[in-house]
Amino acid sequence: MHADFLIFPQWLLPVDAQDRELRDHAVAVADGRILAVLPAPEARRSITAARVHELPGHVLIPGLVNAHTHAAMTLMRGLADDLPLMTWLHDYIWPTETRRVDPRFVGDGSRLAVLEMLRGGVTCFNDMYFYPEVTAQVAADAGMRALIGMIVVDLPTGYADGADAYIAKGLALHAHYRGHPLIRIGFAPHSPYAVSDAPLERIRTLADELEVPVHIHLHETRDEVVASLRDHGARPLARLEALGLVGPGLVAAHMTQLDDAEIERLAAAGAHVVHCPESNLKLASGFCPVARLLAAGVNVALGTDGAASNNDLDLLAEMRTAALLAKGVAGSAAALPAAAALRMATLNGAHALGLEREIGSIEPGKAADLVALDLRDANTQPLYRAVSHLVYAAGRHQVRQVWVQGRQVIRDGAPTSLDQDAVIAAAQGWAQRLAPA
Amino acid sequence: MHADFLIFPQWLLPVDAQDRELRDHAVAVADGRILAVLPAPEARRSITAARVHELPGHVLIPGLVNAHTHAAMTLMRGLADDLPLMTWLHDYIWPTETRRVDPRFVGDGSRLAVLEMLRGGVTCFNDMYFYPEVTAQVAADAGMRALIGMIVVDLPTGYADGADAYIAKGLALHAHYRGHPLIRIGFAPHSPYAVSDAPLERIRTLADELEVPVHIHLHETRDEVVASLRDHGARPLARLEALGLVGPGLVAAHMTQLDDAEIERLAAAGAHVVHCPESNLKLASGFCPVARLLAAGVNVALGTDGAASNNDLDLLAEMRTAALLAKGVAGSAAALPAAAALRMATLNGAHALGLEREIGSIEPGKAADLVALDLRDANTQPLYRAVSHLVYAAGRHQVRQVWVQGRQVIRDGAPTSLDQDAVIAAAQGWAQRLAPA
Repeated sequence: MHADFLIFPQWLLPVDAQDRELRDHAVAVADGRILAVLPAPEARRSITAARVHELPGHVLIPGLVNAHTHAAMTLMRGLADDLPLMTWLHDYIWPTETRRVDPRFVGDGSRLAVLEMLRGGVTCFNDMYFYPEVTAQVAADAGMRALIGMIVVDLPTGYADGADAYIAKGLALHAHYRGHPLIRIGFAPHSPYAVSDAPLERIRTLADELEVPVHIHLHETRDEVVASLRDHGARPLARLEALGLVGPGLVAAHMTQLDDAEIERLAAAGAHVVHCPESNLKLASGFCPVARLLAAGVNVALGTDGAASNNDLDLLAEMRTAALLAKGVAGSAAALPAAAALRMATLNGAHALGLEREIGSIEPGKAADLVALDLRDANTQPLYRAVSHLVYAAGRHQVRQVWVQGRQVIRDGAPTSLDQDAVIAAAQGWAQRLAPA
Repeated sequence: MHADFLIFPQWLLPVDAQDRELRDHAVAVADGRILAVLPAPEARRSITAARVHELPGHVLIPGLVNAHTHAAMTLMRGLADDLPLMTWLHDYIWPTETRRVDPRFVGDGSRLAVLEMLRGGVTCFNDMYFYPEVTAQVAADAGMRALIGMIVVDLPTGYADGADAYIAKGLALHAHYRGHPLIRIGFAPHSPYAVSDAPLERIRTLADELEVPVHIHLHETRDEVVASLRDHGARPLARLEALGLVGPGLVAAHMTQLDDAEIERLAAAGAHVVHCPESNLKLASGFCPVARLLAAGVNVALGTDGAASNNDLDLLAEMRTAALLAKGVAGSAAALPAAAALRMATLNGAHALGLEREIGSIEPGKAADLVALDLRDANTQPLYRAVSHLVYAAGRHQVRQVWVQGRQVIRDGAPTSLDQDAVIAAAQGWAQRLAPA
């Protein structure tokens, strides 16, 4: 059998049904896909390959999936912190966006985000922001996988002058990327409070026709729920249910406010939750009941949210925060074990984005989205189980090699598809323009 | 004026009374102490120095103080995770300790911990473990500052055969290090449940005479409080108060169970709390009410706890977790701003350890315990405020230069006082001996 390349990591975490931790196994890749996962001696005997990556001391994992972010907002990283949510939004984020957001902003911000994510082992992201065509182009150019949202809000912005215009621009974007190997286009109505019933109904019809996910902020804060009860006589989830939007296509970010009945209904509907623990903590939005959601059978993925409220796009750290916080919130040290946290950051993310047949685990036939981390450093020694160090001790500087669809986009920690110095210099230029007076 | 060396960072966070963020300032060091902090042009004009460190794009901060850890336990990093506290202790940690802990274990574990901490910008730690003389020697040899605990428990171990023997060994250690520039020796009775009244009373008398702190696990879990009410008719803090131990010398680690009256009494007594957010989450011990403690005027420091329950000694990440978690627990995004988190990890730690006149801030006369981080990487760009990125976005791989008492112990990210490969190899040897069957 012939492969384009073979990888020999010391440990392999395929995120398979048994959560196995394999030693001395190899992964063979051909035409951007995983050809075989097999014991290393067998691979050396039976597979010829043009290139061989020998990775002693490394663990190989599926590429991480950042299931909720706003890539371009990376330019506002640290612009304002430690403020109540509404002060932060009204006095800092929204004025800056109104004044400054244009295609160049989105391009420079998305490039910085893509650079940061690829270097941290994130191979796929789910984005929601203005000028999505720019973010899609940046990801495609960098060889990164993404689900890009057709953003919809009621209010006019520089990008579009009302819900119909947002939808029209989105549909053009969707048509443009049809059949693209890395870029998918889905709907991304901002939130129940920013989009009224008529456009939400249109989105439901179109999403069904196009068979694309609907990505939305939902039950992020208690205030959101209270305001919805006041304005619509229903909690936001109930309102979306009445509009027919709660099904296997729903990708609901945050979900810090959930009662038992809602959890049951999410499970029954096959809807997906994206947990964003660091953003929820930083903005004091509340605690997502992750252990209860998982116990009910809800698919829970993981997201960083935007870097303006995190303040990074580090999914490895997010996985750790999720595993730690779930234990504290559930009052049980057994809640969300390391392997479950890794699953949230990979296969559950793929599932939420409708990509579970394509990515999320290391199995023959799936795309070769792969990440190798070097665990030989002091902070990940000694080693008893690789998955423990991956979740509880490793830092993203230990990400050394990253492949997306078989293309190596990070080699020895450095990007192959982006000019790192130029990306950082462009971001620095924006800091001078955006800095509060 | 002449200095041994001058440092020119781009940003300087001295942790002074105003939480200033200085640009283009210099720090002059002579004889291991900070000689001056002054504007860079003035330093270039008025100070001659044998060596000059030009650090564009770097932020200089006081060395971080890890105010509660068990260095040697680093050898048990990841040995067992995701287990209820009592299963973890009874089935994994204690059996391993009983079988394996000896001076060689403590030496190899402490060296790995000291390596990890120095590389992560921790210049001082407060330790509690068996064979403290070994950990003290490791720290002294590596040029690291430490408060080493005279550990006391009722039960006999390989180290000592009862409370009196622990105290006697501790007192010999204290005498040995009297006047040492880096190593201080204090008391470290394990916890109210592991030490009975008689030795605690003796410790109080001796601690008063020797003027050393008393470091203890306190109110770590709800079960501890319930058991104390059952066995002693009082909550642990009340019992320690009756024994005269609650005063400015008390360094109480964890403190997840506190009512308002207890917070007031801690403040009135001038006692110190060491918050260990990641350990408390991982073991589901509870949430320390950090914002309420700080509001009441209690000095709150920060600790990683041991690497067996964290699973690292990364105080930079701990600072971030503390800042994020405090907001979630307080329900306010304004709780524990970045500058306050940095203060907890530096000056408050120094204060808890009785070293506030010596370390914890960058001010003339204090010891030159200094850390420089390179913020030019993608994940800390663009930059609006250095303190924001330090707390919310930087990783410890960005720690590049570390000085303790003016001696450079980390140069360009690598240790100068430890043989890194040998330290890691020794730790790997232990993994084979300690691995669960």
